[in-house]
Amino acid sequence: MDKRLEQQSALFVMDGVKGGHDGMNYGTPKKFRKKQQNTLDVATLASEVRAGNRISLSKAITLIESSNAEHKQQAQSLLQELLPHTGNSIRIGITGVPGAGKSSFIEAFGSMLCELGKKVAVLAIDPSSSISGGSILGDKTRMEELVRKPNAFVRPSPSAGTLGGVHKKTRETMLVCEAAGYDVILIETVGVGQSETYVRGMVDFFLLLVLTGAGDELQGMKKGIMELADGIIVHKSDGDNIRPARKTVQEYKQILHFLQPATPGWMSTALAVSSHEKTGLQETWEMIRAFQEKVYASNYWTIRRHKQTRDWFHAMITDHLLDSFYQNTDNKMQVSRLEEAILQGQLTVTQGVNKLFEK
Amino acid sequence: MDKRLEQQSALFVMDGVKGGHDGMNYGTPKKFRKKQQNTLDVATLASEVRAGNRISLSKAITLIESSNAEHKQQAQSLLQELLPHTGNSIRIGITGVPGAGKSSFIEAFGSMLCELGKKVAVLAIDPSSSISGGSILGDKTRMEELVRKPNAFVRPSPSAGTLGGVHKKTRETMLVCEAAGYDVILIETVGVGQSETYVRGMVDFFLLLVLTGAGDELQGMKKGIMELADGIIVHKSDGDNIRPARKTVQEYKQILHFLQPATPGWMSTALAVSSHEKTGLQETWEMIRAFQEKVYASNYWTIRRHKQTRDWFHAMITDHLLDSFYQNTDNKMQVSRLEEAILQGQLTVTQGVNKLFEK
Repeated sequence: MDKRLEQQSALFVMDGVKGGHDGMNYGTPKKFRKKQQNTLDVATLASEVRAGNRISLSKAITLIESSNAEHKQQAQSLLQELLPHTGNSIRIGITGVPGAGKSSFIEAFGSMLCELGKKVAVLAIDPSSSISGGSILGDKTRMEELVRKPNAFVRPSPSAGTLGGVHKKTRETMLVCEAAGYDVILIETVGVGQSETYVRGMVDFFLLLVLTGAGDELQGMKKGIMELADGIIVHKSDGDNIRPARKTVQEYKQILHFLQPATPGWMSTALAVSSHEKTGLQETWEMIRAFQEKVYASNYWTIRRHKQTRDWFHAMITDHLLDSFYQNTDNKMQVSRLEEAILQGQLTVTQGVNKLFEK
Repeated sequence: MDKRLEQQSALFVMDGVKGGHDGMNYGTPKKFRKKQQNTLDVATLASEVRAGNRISLSKAITLIESSNAEHKQQAQSLLQELLPHTGNSIRIGITGVPGAGKSSFIEAFGSMLCELGKKVAVLAIDPSSSISGGSILGDKTRMEELVRKPNAFVRPSPSAGTLGGVHKKTRETMLVCEAAGYDVILIETVGVGQSETYVRGMVDFFLLLVLTGAGDELQGMKKGIMELADGIIVHKSDGDNIRPARKTVQEYKQILHFLQPATPGWMSTALAVSSHEKTGLQETWEMIRAFQEKVYASNYWTIRRHKQTRDWFHAMITDHLLDSFYQNTDNKMQVSRLEEAILQGQLTVTQGVNKLFEK
């Protein structure tokens, strides 16, 4: 964004906030009207979001997810407007193998939190959704109880392309939800692979859902995932499954004892939960509250959040540099030619890199 | 390197190989002598390395580690010359907490391999050595038995600065050792932190050394390290320690069962070893041989090595792009100014990135 234009737009936004929220511009000279109209929309949207209007919140997130250049600029003005009102939630990442019952857990856990008076936002990060396109409809129908709660906001997966993009948009969506007064943000990882590491990098507490039979379960999971978890839920602990679930909880506790803690000063632990019978949900919330208290007290809460923001900034700088390099067709072709020559033993790796950048 | 110059130099190198190894240039016109002398040295060095001359091998590695521009070019000519003769070793990475006895294990294990008729090269990767400077002398005095074996070559840690640099140099050193006919390359991680991941990315088999009392041990280790290991050695299993070591072996086997295997098709396992009593060393070699057989058969051996080379190339491209960006003082200053503004909530992360690249 041009610097002058940005300052101007910031001013218009301020005017908009001061000068009534009806979107009309009495007495504004005609030649400024169109421009001011645009920026006033952002200001109005910002105050509607802050007032807790869920339709406006949805609109704001759509603006953030848009790839249209004008929308992108408006989204950034909106975010800048909302920034001072962000950060006042607990951000919880939730992951687990397919079939672990993430949606039914979020439905039950989120509903309980709403009944405790919390405002709960559910976001999903799904780097694969642009390919499969499958989970968006799924989200809408899965959490029937939760979506009817006035305190809940359930947003389906963003449909953005690259993982870097989803990452960025989920972070920005999270900030908008915080400005809208949501106390608890639940971020569900829908995809497999890299998404867990991304989510770990944007949340305070990371929850792993597993089923009984720990060994077999973990075979299908990403390496190192257990060491990212602040808490493990052994899910579907109901009926005949209660006893094996309790045994699995003990097994996980034993493994967690061997591993380095995901959060300094917090000993990760495991719990048996049934979303069907609604057991273990309060204990889950107590665990998260105990975590929050400990990590607040040690100041690691702020340290981690600052680190996450810095890492996000640096990751976006790296993404930008790599994108600009690989978007150039010549570079891309030369890289794959050189790669081939290296694999065939015609060139050393260093020679390949030197050739690439010799111009 | 200029393409024409490189072809020329490759020709000179070929001439050097064909035309006797005494380094003299009978009948060469005076005006070419200096240039040809340089390239002939590389060819001579290459053939000396291939003939198994350990002094020449040391010289070749010093050339690779040099930061002098001319040396760098010569090092790359040398490597290109040697490339067709590389790849015929088993590359073993060895890591463990300080005090686990990595050096005494390498001393005992390497000596046993030499007695089996293997040629063994020991390299160390130590990203911290440029700061501490401590481990270089240590290496020389530690492996007294091994360094006296005619079949062994022990190279102290490289003294290069950045991790990226060490990484690259250890890889290239490994290739030179392979061209010199070493069958087993042992790469010891001396530092802590990132180095394990780098070493995992350049070896076939990754060995983790631990002591008895698994839980306490692992507390000091890097997250996810156990999931990188193809084998775990419970070390110092001698005297009163034999029983607890056997118990620890069982505990590790149980944990390994829960984790995703480091190498597809290979079930990572644990062994008790005493380097002092020389027990468990043959079992360690049998384990590595069994691994090799399995992974060869599934073709994952080649798949992994190709992937490692490609990853190395792409990591060096990324390093180059990031270095050129951050080496610019203006960029560096702007990044830290923007970072500050972002942390204080004045700018969104996206706005920060846009500002950085708006020029």
